[in-house]
Amino acid sequence: MDDSVESDSPQLIQQLRQRLLTYRGIYAEQDEILITLGTQNALFIIGTVFSNKDKIIAIEDPGYPGAQNAFKLSGNSFVGVAVDQEGLDVSSIPENCQLVFTTPSHQFPTMVTMSESRRKQLLEASVAQDFLIIEDDYEAEMNYFDSRSRSLRSLDQNNRVIYVGSLSKTVSPGIRLGFMVAHRDIIERARTIRGVMMRHPPTIIQETVALFFRLGYYDAHLRNLQRRYKKRWQSMNHSISTHLSMLEQTQNKGGTSFWLRGPEGFNARDLADRLRDKGVLIDIGETFYLSHDTRSFRLGFAFVTMQKLEEGIIIIAEEVKQLLQ
Amino acid sequence: MDDSVESDSPQLIQQLRQRLLTYRGIYAEQDEILITLGTQNALFIIGTVFSNKDKIIAIEDPGYPGAQNAFKLSGNSFVGVAVDQEGLDVSSIPENCQLVFTTPSHQFPTMVTMSESRRKQLLEASVAQDFLIIEDDYEAEMNYFDSRSRSLRSLDQNNRVIYVGSLSKTVSPGIRLGFMVAHRDIIERARTIRGVMMRHPPTIIQETVALFFRLGYYDAHLRNLQRRYKKRWQSMNHSISTHLSMLEQTQNKGGTSFWLRGPEGFNARDLADRLRDKGVLIDIGETFYLSHDTRSFRLGFAFVTMQKLEEGIIIIAEEVKQLLQ
Repeated sequence: MDDSVESDSPQLIQQLRQRLLTYRGIYAEQDEILITLGTQNALFIIGTVFSNKDKIIAIEDPGYPGAQNAFKLSGNSFVGVAVDQEGLDVSSIPENCQLVFTTPSHQFPTMVTMSESRRKQLLEASVAQDFLIIEDDYEAEMNYFDSRSRSLRSLDQNNRVIYVGSLSKTVSPGIRLGFMVAHRDIIERARTIRGVMMRHPPTIIQETVALFFRLGYYDAHLRNLQRRYKKRWQSMNHSISTHLSMLEQTQNKGGTSFWLRGPEGFNARDLADRLRDKGVLIDIGETFYLSHDTRSFRLGFAFVTMQKLEEGIIIIAEEVKQLLQ
Repeated sequence: MDDSVESDSPQLIQQLRQRLLTYRGIYAEQDEILITLGTQNALFIIGTVFSNKDKIIAIEDPGYPGAQNAFKLSGNSFVGVAVDQEGLDVSSIPENCQLVFTTPSHQFPTMVTMSESRRKQLLEASVAQDFLIIEDDYEAEMNYFDSRSRSLRSLDQNNRVIYVGSLSKTVSPGIRLGFMVAHRDIIERARTIRGVMMRHPPTIIQETVALFFRLGYYDAHLRNLQRRYKKRWQSMNHSISTHLSMLEQTQNKGGTSFWLRGPEGFNARDLADRLRDKGVLIDIGETFYLSHDTRSFRLGFAFVTMQKLEEGIIIIAEEVKQLLQ
């Protein structure tokens, strides 16, 4: 395999266009797409393209810590915007933002899917307040019941959306490939910056993944994943309703995790400490908040077998009961 | 393959320690090594670790433009230091430098190997003037006659050297893997920064290359490369002596290119323009200089077949003669 200097595998770009992007309702020319070393790398590159200490990036609160770190290291300031049952609270986006980072398909970490009306409101605000939107289409493929939500990029009439997608969940975490879709001027700058950071994601992986798509393995693999995750989602959802009804549960329609919240005075860190001794790991919500909240926690099931799921929820329920006494 | 979060493949680290690093006289513990996405990525990470607008990085002039770009994008200022027949002119390194970037094995682009006495002088200056050295061990493996030079890192008694190596030339450009060796505190910070930029170089490539080493393919492949490049080097060296003796030639002992310089008034850009029409490509030296020099050019042979080598030199000689009339 040769060094491809700054360009990407035309085969991979073509496969992304034909399969992933059409699935999300997105039409993009070759020069509107850039391959990145996963989502994290895409966010760092975007942060560097727009690096500006005087302007602000609005991010979801709670949100993805990797995004905060990427924006900080690339020299940006950011502000948290609350998330409710319809997703990012658009009316709270401050006036002086140049970028808004959001995860509309499944908000990380709450798993809320952004409502259609909220999407419309966000796109309108991007024009009225003159900001660009970074749409991290987190776990877009993991919808088990409802038809999938429409991507912001596909609804966008004004080239305001920078779309970021990942292959880590759907192909394999070990390949570390992602991509971004944006106006060609942004992609051109991003490509130059990527060149200085690393030249480009390894050609050999780009070609291998392109072949994986072309031979139809991706589609088969994705259906398997969806079936497996759907079973676990159903099992976990049922167990939570049965055993953890004393906690507030954020409604979700897919993804690979659940978000729960205890009553006033509940401390998720205490729960995590107790559970660790019993071999059950939970993510405390505190680490995802810019504001202060000690009552939330996240239960991921992507790496937990069916057998262990209900067992785990019962152990969690026992400890929660003791803590709430 | 799983996502390895921030750690690298222990198999690959072990292979680097056993093969590449011992070959360069370097002993390093696991936590003193970080895998990067090639040399370019290593330089960008190092630039970010030491990012400081008020301190200066000294770089070779002429030098590697990728290094300049990496240091600039990571928020550093730099100054050029001249290169002579012994390598970097250590006595010209300004007082206020925090880092000195150098390519001692084969200086890029002049291909000068840094002399032993100059190496000693550089290491002494690093203590006296309190700077760290970034040693980019460019084409260290490409020595065809003399015994190889000793790496600065192997001579360093004071942990002043950050060593950067690449597998792009010796394994394949398509894999984009490199590595850095430094004090564990530097590696720890570099690892955190790498995590924010991209998490880590793809696990699947790290494991594949580790296997390539472990099964002995690397050693065989490297011997083949060396044989092939030695033949081309000899042929090109002979052709240059025969046909281009009117130009000043920088002596070199290896590498995959030659560096030539015309007399006063010679313009390498004119030569490049004339040659392009005849299907011969040369790199004009101007692009490697921070200072002004229009007389130099570089002839790379890594991608030129034996048959075309002398043919090309004869065409170059004809055009040079016309330009010098």
